[in-house]
Amino acid sequence: MAALGTAFTLDPRLAANTLPVAQLDLCDVRLMDDTRFGWLVLVPRRVALEEIFDLDADARIRLLAEMDQTAVALRAQLPCDKLNVGALGNIVRQLHLHIVARRVGDVAWPGPVWGHDARVPYTLAAGRALCAALRARLVASTE
Amino acid sequence: MAALGTAFTLDPRLAANTLPVAQLDLCDVRLMDDTRFGWLVLVPRRVALEEIFDLDADARIRLLAEMDQTAVALRAQLPCDKLNVGALGNIVRQLHLHIVARRVGDVAWPGPVWGHDARVPYTLAAGRALCAALRARLVASTE
Repeated sequence: MAALGTAFTLDPRLAANTLPVAQLDLCDVRLMDDTRFGWLVLVPRRVALEEIFDLDADARIRLLAEMDQTAVALRAQLPCDKLNVGALGNIVRQLHLHIVARRVGDVAWPGPVWGHDARVPYTLAAGRALCAALRARLVASTE
Repeated sequence: MAALGTAFTLDPRLAANTLPVAQLDLCDVRLMDDTRFGWLVLVPRRVALEEIFDLDADARIRLLAEMDQTAVALRAQLPCDKLNVGALGNIVRQLHLHIVARRVGDVAWPGPVWGHDARVPYTLAAGRALCAALRARLVASTE
């Protein structure tokens, strides 16, 4: 077992609120377990990161590429009117990027999704199916 | 006068809610006219952009560099506990990036600043002074 602080570990709150989709070169891609929105979270597998600006230049460019790849997959799977992209981290400090497929008239529209009432989790089958569909799109885009 | 759609024009709602700080190579940097938060907005001077992912690869890297430069200036001027970075555009579709200096215990903490009650504008003198101080930091960082 790695000593604390030397190996990447997903924050337990992120682990509890999201479902695993895929591992890209830099980031874990996870689905927010909330049927109200098509909402993916990217988590760079680096230790002790809090801000995008803590990443070195190469990793930032990689992050931007993976955000793009993720956004393409998300939009293809869950057509939307607008993407919302955010890095907040006020509650969970581990660096994570939100990419959210917003639809005009969704329950939080036009406000932000963050802090908007309680999540509405997927059923086990529906969550797994959506993660698999998103993973297939992400894998196809890297081949 | 340029024909519609061929020249960059700042969205009038952004113009009304923000004060001019500086022009970087790609982006206009503007201060959200809201004393509750240290809040800068970057607007790439390109026509008909809605998503970060609509920018070509070179411009994206430029945007990331200007976000970094802006974040450094903002944090130096207004020390904070966490940066919040977001691109929403649900209301104003013209692509704009928010960089917000958050403090533990600020009026929206730990929620997002977007949609949090009404702005509290700067006095004319205070707004101008803060923009000048931020501009000086941005200019110094490009020299």
